[in-house]
Amino acid sequence: MYEALEWGSTIESRKTALLRPRVKSAAGLAFVLHSSKSVAMLGFCVTAFAISSHALNVQSLARAPAMRAIRALSTRGGASFMSAIELEEAGEFGTTDYSMTFKKGGEVMSPWHDAPLELDGGLYNMLTEIPKMTLKKMEVDTKAPGNPIKQDEKKGKARLYHGPIFWNYGCLPQTWEDPNHKGDEDVGGAFGDDDPVDVVEIGAASLAMGSFTPVKVLGCLSMIDDGELDWKVIAINAADEHADAINDVDDIEKFYPGTVSGIREWFRWYKTPDDKPVNGFGHGERALNAAETKAVIEETHGFYKALLEGKVDAGKLWIPKA
Amino acid sequence: MYEALEWGSTIESRKTALLRPRVKSAAGLAFVLHSSKSVAMLGFCVTAFAISSHALNVQSLARAPAMRAIRALSTRGGASFMSAIELEEAGEFGTTDYSMTFKKGGEVMSPWHDAPLELDGGLYNMLTEIPKMTLKKMEVDTKAPGNPIKQDEKKGKARLYHGPIFWNYGCLPQTWEDPNHKGDEDVGGAFGDDDPVDVVEIGAASLAMGSFTPVKVLGCLSMIDDGELDWKVIAINAADEHADAINDVDDIEKFYPGTVSGIREWFRWYKTPDDKPVNGFGHGERALNAAETKAVIEETHGFYKALLEGKVDAGKLWIPKA
Repeated sequence: MYEALEWGSTIESRKTALLRPRVKSAAGLAFVLHSSKSVAMLGFCVTAFAISSHALNVQSLARAPAMRAIRALSTRGGASFMSAIELEEAGEFGTTDYSMTFKKGGEVMSPWHDAPLELDGGLYNMLTEIPKMTLKKMEVDTKAPGNPIKQDEKKGKARLYHGPIFWNYGCLPQTWEDPNHKGDEDVGGAFGDDDPVDVVEIGAASLAMGSFTPVKVLGCLSMIDDGELDWKVIAINAADEHADAINDVDDIEKFYPGTVSGIREWFRWYKTPDDKPVNGFGHGERALNAAETKAVIEETHGFYKALLEGKVDAGKLWIPKA
Repeated sequence: MYEALEWGSTIESRKTALLRPRVKSAAGLAFVLHSSKSVAMLGFCVTAFAISSHALNVQSLARAPAMRAIRALSTRGGASFMSAIELEEAGEFGTTDYSMTFKKGGEVMSPWHDAPLELDGGLYNMLTEIPKMTLKKMEVDTKAPGNPIKQDEKKGKARLYHGPIFWNYGCLPQTWEDPNHKGDEDVGGAFGDDDPVDVVEIGAASLAMGSFTPVKVLGCLSMIDDGELDWKVIAINAADEHADAINDVDDIEKFYPGTVSGIREWFRWYKTPDDKPVNGFGHGERALNAAETKAVIEETHGFYKALLEGKVDAGKLWIPKA
């Protein structure tokens, strides 16, 4: 199902093609466009990535050549220039041996530390870890050098969700939920979960694992998992056909009905098949709006900066040497 | 994991043991008590049935002897007497060859037609088809003689849910969602889906496939699936430790938080991994209360009676000869 696309045309025509993928379903092809402020990581477009309609297994990028050069596009300020990010895969996908390392110019780059958080036009930069309708629990390994994407382990085995997640799932670079920071009353005084902030992307297209996507931030839920605060930012791919019409959390229902409540219930219940209790939510279960969510992101970016500056104990987290 | 229990004590002590199973989780043992008005089918208690904690596969009753005599209890009017229902399994569980046939005294009985709908004390009689935290789509075969439980087929294969359902799931005997009956405005004029009424049982215990359980009816959702009305009755095992305190749909939240919204979202989203759209709900998505739900059950019991009386075309449905 893997299909390499050649982009031989101008930057502008590529942008047009990418920004209007017209993908209506999860089984369709997904195109990911990244734009970035960072020269070190300009962003890229990944090739098409299709998911089987039953989707109990993710279509692995590992079936493509192990090292792929990915063309980069930038839309910043009208400048157009190219760069290359390489995704280096090792080990068998679906096992705890698997890893996806991010490289540029032969050097390892961290998707957590070396990618920008914010993009032009008020957009944010989402790293996809788990494509929609898949169930392998892939995530940035915050403790390993270079922070590759690995499959989470549980009792020595590669962790699966109980069933597929219905949305693209990933995180925001350069954010951190500080486990030393006690949240306010709205979250019951919960401390952060020691991870980057999670993002649930609600658009129609499937986003590839390891891709960066410019997203519009719409809202968030303050999930409380085993007493830890674990924000779930709700965002939409800026290239989604409805992205222009959806500017805040209350706009979602018209175009993607049941999505906010669906996300809330998915995360409330998802650990119960493993004999764990339902998760809770702060803020009286309310989804915060876009402005409130951007403030949450700003706060967790502040925690991140303090971490990088050595003001907070990093514990076992891998962070670049100063 | 299958464990046969011997009940050598008096009826009264058995009842006590069964009515307070004190099972807190899906991984625990489940006890099912049935009581019935019907002499033909007195009800029974099934033996303990444990589910693996990961629960991606149901623990099959097929691992027990293929034919099991199940002792019956009746609580009706203080009378205590015994009967026997036999569950006869054939074919490999997990394949479309599998079937569970209900028998009494060597004669086939239909779990749809030969079990009572209502029980003493205002309770209803739920047949469990899919135990909580399992994903095999087991259901009464309405078209096969005797209406055995079979695994639904999809494109010639045994159908699985995308992931486990978090509650026990089954149906109400002697009900029918008439495909000839046009619903009112609250359900957008949808016609019935040609099946018995579905029940979602929210209690802590796992209920065994093929067991009958007295339940308190609490509410329902008017799900619209591909234009068809498919009621989801929400009920609780009368033996659940919180059953006495939960008398209507609004009482659920205190004891089982997020359950009504969880059920709504589970059924809204569950077909999307198969590239189908989200399901909708009538009544502005509101869960109807217990009284409204009993009226719905009464209506569908009326449709059922008309079906049995030959007033409506049965199509391919299997119904007893008059």
